[in-house]
Amino acid sequence: MMTSLGDKGEGHRETTALLGNEDEGSVQTQTKVLNQGSWTQVSCPCCVSEQVEPLVLIQLSDNIQPVTKRWLISLIEVSERDGGAALLAHPGEDECGDVIVVSAPRCTLLRATEDLGLCKKYHNGDMVAFSYNDRDNFRNVDDMQEFLTLAERQYIVKYELDFLRAQKGQKIPGVPESQGVLKARENICQKLEKAGVIKDIFPLHDKQRLTDLCRNWYSGKQIWGQPLDSIQAYFGGTVGFYFSFLDFYTWALVPPAILGLVLTFLLPGGGSGAGVVKEQAGGVVEVDDSPSVSGHMVQAVFSMLWSTLVMEFWKRRSSSLSHRWGLLHLAERFAEPRPGFHGTLGINPVTGRLEPLFPEWQRQLRVGLVSVPLVGFFLGMVVLGMTGFYHGEALAQGFHQDSDSLFSGALLYLPSVAHIIYTNMLGNVYRTVAMQLTEWENHREESSFQNHHTTKVLLFTFFNYFAVLFHIAFYKQDLSLLRKRLASLLIVTQLVNQCTEVVVPFIVDRFFSAPQKKQQEDDPNVDKLRAQRSLPPFPGLFAEYIELLVQFGYLSLFSCVYPLTAVLLLLNNVTEIRADAYKICKLFRKPFSAPVSNIGVWQTAFEVLGFVSVMSNCWLLLLSPRVREFCLEGGISGRNIILFAILVEHVLILVKMILAFMIPDEPDWVRIKREQIEFHSMQALGQQVRE
Amino acid sequence: MMTSLGDKGEGHRETTALLGNEDEGSVQTQTKVLNQGSWTQVSCPCCVSEQVEPLVLIQLSDNIQPVTKRWLISLIEVSERDGGAALLAHPGEDECGDVIVVSAPRCTLLRATEDLGLCKKYHNGDMVAFSYNDRDNFRNVDDMQEFLTLAERQYIVKYELDFLRAQKGQKIPGVPESQGVLKARENICQKLEKAGVIKDIFPLHDKQRLTDLCRNWYSGKQIWGQPLDSIQAYFGGTVGFYFSFLDFYTWALVPPAILGLVLTFLLPGGGSGAGVVKEQAGGVVEVDDSPSVSGHMVQAVFSMLWSTLVMEFWKRRSSSLSHRWGLLHLAERFAEPRPGFHGTLGINPVTGRLEPLFPEWQRQLRVGLVSVPLVGFFLGMVVLGMTGFYHGEALAQGFHQDSDSLFSGALLYLPSVAHIIYTNMLGNVYRTVAMQLTEWENHREESSFQNHHTTKVLLFTFFNYFAVLFHIAFYKQDLSLLRKRLASLLIVTQLVNQCTEVVVPFIVDRFFSAPQKKQQEDDPNVDKLRAQRSLPPFPGLFAEYIELLVQFGYLSLFSCVYPLTAVLLLLNNVTEIRADAYKICKLFRKPFSAPVSNIGVWQTAFEVLGFVSVMSNCWLLLLSPRVREFCLEGGISGRNIILFAILVEHVLILVKMILAFMIPDEPDWVRIKREQIEFHSMQALGQQVRE
Repeated sequence: MMTSLGDKGEGHRETTALLGNEDEGSVQTQTKVLNQGSWTQVSCPCCVSEQVEPLVLIQLSDNIQPVTKRWLISLIEVSERDGGAALLAHPGEDECGDVIVVSAPRCTLLRATEDLGLCKKYHNGDMVAFSYNDRDNFRNVDDMQEFLTLAERQYIVKYELDFLRAQKGQKIPGVPESQGVLKARENICQKLEKAGVIKDIFPLHDKQRLTDLCRNWYSGKQIWGQPLDSIQAYFGGTVGFYFSFLDFYTWALVPPAILGLVLTFLLPGGGSGAGVVKEQAGGVVEVDDSPSVSGHMVQAVFSMLWSTLVMEFWKRRSSSLSHRWGLLHLAERFAEPRPGFHGTLGINPVTGRLEPLFPEWQRQLRVGLVSVPLVGFFLGMVVLGMTGFYHGEALAQGFHQDSDSLFSGALLYLPSVAHIIYTNMLGNVYRTVAMQLTEWENHREESSFQNHHTTKVLLFTFFNYFAVLFHIAFYKQDLSLLRKRLASLLIVTQLVNQCTEVVVPFIVDRFFSAPQKKQQEDDPNVDKLRAQRSLPPFPGLFAEYIELLVQFGYLSLFSCVYPLTAVLLLLNNVTEIRADAYKICKLFRKPFSAPVSNIGVWQTAFEVLGFVSVMSNCWLLLLSPRVREFCLEGGISGRNIILFAILVEHVLILVKMILAFMIPDEPDWVRIKREQIEFHSMQALGQQVRE
Repeated sequence: MMTSLGDKGEGHRETTALLGNEDEGSVQTQTKVLNQGSWTQVSCPCCVSEQVEPLVLIQLSDNIQPVTKRWLISLIEVSERDGGAALLAHPGEDECGDVIVVSAPRCTLLRATEDLGLCKKYHNGDMVAFSYNDRDNFRNVDDMQEFLTLAERQYIVKYELDFLRAQKGQKIPGVPESQGVLKARENICQKLEKAGVIKDIFPLHDKQRLTDLCRNWYSGKQIWGQPLDSIQAYFGGTVGFYFSFLDFYTWALVPPAILGLVLTFLLPGGGSGAGVVKEQAGGVVEVDDSPSVSGHMVQAVFSMLWSTLVMEFWKRRSSSLSHRWGLLHLAERFAEPRPGFHGTLGINPVTGRLEPLFPEWQRQLRVGLVSVPLVGFFLGMVVLGMTGFYHGEALAQGFHQDSDSLFSGALLYLPSVAHIIYTNMLGNVYRTVAMQLTEWENHREESSFQNHHTTKVLLFTFFNYFAVLFHIAFYKQDLSLLRKRLASLLIVTQLVNQCTEVVVPFIVDRFFSAPQKKQQEDDPNVDKLRAQRSLPPFPGLFAEYIELLVQFGYLSLFSCVYPLTAVLLLLNNVTEIRADAYKICKLFRKPFSAPVSNIGVWQTAFEVLGFVSVMSNCWLLLLSPRVREFCLEGGISGRNIILFAILVEHVLILVKMILAFMIPDEPDWVRIKREQIEFHSMQALGQQVRE
């Protein structure tokens, strides 16, 4: 159920009364309380707690057999030694309902914290990789609500559920024989999802925290900053990093925006206002609304260096955030492989544990010999589609000019329509192929899987967005068309984004969901968990990142032809932050978010774009009619201009590389903290006498 | 004293009788034995040994006071707790002699092994970072001759001597007041060297091992391989890596050499035999002896990809060597700072030890704001000198044509003479400046100091070598001059190198040193340590590496104009290996060699050269008359050729980057071993309960 902005009282009442069991007196921690008696019992005495916090909801199929549900609950509660997940389960409103609510006892949380390699505050205030043996030296270790963030607790539950494996071959009770036979060491959750028993697993919102977060984030008077720590605590690492990056990037847009304004409105010869009318050789009168040569140069050089500086300083920001959030020493490499990983069972040579093994060289062969060519093929198909479109358009135009009938007029639209259909189909096919290729590459770590998958989709999407612009810039070499296209893309994209991201959701939430809410609230017995279940799942941050990347591309690749780009982007991002915040808080199920220590492959994508921007800017400068004119006046030959442009390009790339090398990737204090941990672990190894 | 090749019997007699104390029965280990009774006593019972191996010689000034020598010996022998070095000292032939021979007891060696982070064979055969607590689980831990290599033992002695620090302010006995006052925590060895008390410290040769090594290395029938493990064991990490690299690089020259031979002698249109006589616009008849277009292209593309492949595979080779030699986990960062390091005394935030501290940002400021501009200034001076030379030459030629007198004829030589003097002076000034700048940058680690110093000298030397070639290729754009210059450089340089490196030393050793040896051997009481003292100190590997780098430069930057480069280099290197081996074994004092895990900054230098080579090759292709002709025939405009060349360059750089990224820097098995160690140290940290 949604609390609309402002009616906090109602929200508070809900948090204490989620399943109708109103013992308001004990609800100091503001957690939602299910019927406490129905939770499964914890096995160890230290984990006994008066109150269990519901963390994750397992959505079962509607026609689940009670026997299957009981079997699953017992599996969740049994200790890890006996092949269970050592979690706490609650059957929802009754034994036959189609949900299981899961929570985690203290011991399971602490052990998983060590497994994941999370850093926590030590008694002396340092962030230290948590160790179960040494737990008493960590702060707040007795209060899980303080010790771990909500997102971490929920991720740990998912982590434990994900690694439920069948101890021996067995039949799943209440499921038809054809689907319900588990092999030894088979992943149980994956199997149940395939068999349709589990429909979804998602973390539960905490209404009170969410309301607080929203107030501090977007619905209050806070305009300039975002409560990043609270966002990270509530939504987890990936979401926290996304909003931190968005925040950082928005601030970073201020200098180019100011420069753009200055170049457009203050400097002589700049901006579309001071257009110069020229007669070209072909007799076509063209309005030259490009900025002056010096303005052009300044803008290009500035944007090339700016992109490097932004990414280098973001790396520093990112590493200090990841230290602050205890994510600097994640032990993913040494943890269990991701659930989808398969291979021949063997002893992991590093950790000595029994697990599926898959040789690295085989993965690299698959990536190099299959994935790379296939991705290249699809990129080729994009180019083919584009050339086909241009070719078809020229054909249709020629045909129309020849015959000039109604039919040929209608035929003019055919290439566009065909191209749109082609692009969409290609995109759909590619998404499937990319996911299956990445699965087939068989990555051991979730982060590696994500990075490879993101890279594939990213390349394609980026190509799709920029192929036309590159075609205009490099093949047609038509700067004024590029300028018009860029301006319209920027403005149209922003309008469309603002509509789809802010206005539509707001209207839907206000006018369509609100009556439903009312209706639900009239019925006191309604299962309030259903409110969250009815939301669509969160689509992930891919679309958000790609939007930023495309923006960054417009800005760094082509900004010198349209200096106001940064201003438009800055305006867009200020609202984007609020829109994204609203979306993730109100319009979707809460997503799981793995602990990550940076924004992963997106970092690289932005950096690569920075280098491509040098080439594209040098090229655009070369094409610029003003620069050509300037050179002709100065009597410089075309060959020498090109050679000079190449020289400038190489020097700029060198400068960018030197800058990137000179600016340390992490602030000194983070480096010291990291080295402290390395030194301590080296010492610990030295002091240990192994048998 | 030198044993010439073959007379092993004599060599063996020497090893047992170095200081006249002939107890041949007990010399099973083939170590040189000083008068055992004169060694200082060891303090701990486990280190008592029947026989002490002399490792390092401290050469004192001739007029040393016995009281100073006694003080120094006591300092060397006293335990580390009392501010000594916990080593063993021997006063040489008598109390008044100007040498101290130093050895190390077992405990000191073992503790230093842990401090340095050396890996040793564990009882299960793995290479594990040595830990003193866990020493009994390491193989051969009771036999220092087996456990540590000779080079390691000697380096440890130097390491301990280097960190002798005054415990409190005190006067050095027997040294004038003006020079002999130590401040608290002052470095004693540095002070004594400044005061002239210590003239040199160097490791002693072990005649028997050296003879064995020489036999296996260059004087035997072994032609194809080098005994790399023995070289590393005897001479240490840096020398071991140099010869491994030389070996690897020589083998890597085989494919380009074959390609060069094929292109020159087998393909039509290639090589100087099939020259085409063309009349140029200016009426000058020019013999075009360049290879055909396709040969040109093949050679250029091959050499660009080859350079990347070589360096990537060398990285793999290097990491497996460094694992094999136990150098993968050096703890330099956490060890004491290098002796020359200074700063305000404070607590190291990482290790918690009291030591001088110097903030990283200040060092970076010094590098960025002072060193980089100064180096740039000197490089500018090189260019200035070169332009001055060309200018002066043109002037002198003009003057000579005008007056045609004897005086003007002599004047023709003035520019060359002036340029040589200028270059030499500049080089000398630069070397001093580079050393002092690097000292002033105040690096904490020796490796960082070495890298920064090497980079500075390297840039300058490389510039000096290549400025003329780049001038011809890029400014004069005269390919046939470049080809002649390159061929003559290659042949002349090789002849000169072979002479200075092989022939001259051999003659000196055979005809000038041999009579002296005879004379010495006639006198049985001569101090045989003096033989080693009379040798000049080893000049370091800088000149050897720069020679390889310059070779690599000729090959990758310009090879497409002279395809036989690789063949000549291959011939050169096969003899180079023997010459270098002979030099280091016979002609110089044994050098100290720190444990290092790779070839350091040279790796980067070769890689950078690989990328520069893409640019230079694309440019040379563009200039090639054959390519121009080919394009003119095909009717391609000059502008389009240039654009095509740029495209090719960018694509090749991309391919090189992808190759470098795709080939893992370490073989799988090394990665697993490294991760094992990381995992174990993480586990050890987790199991440890800190108070």
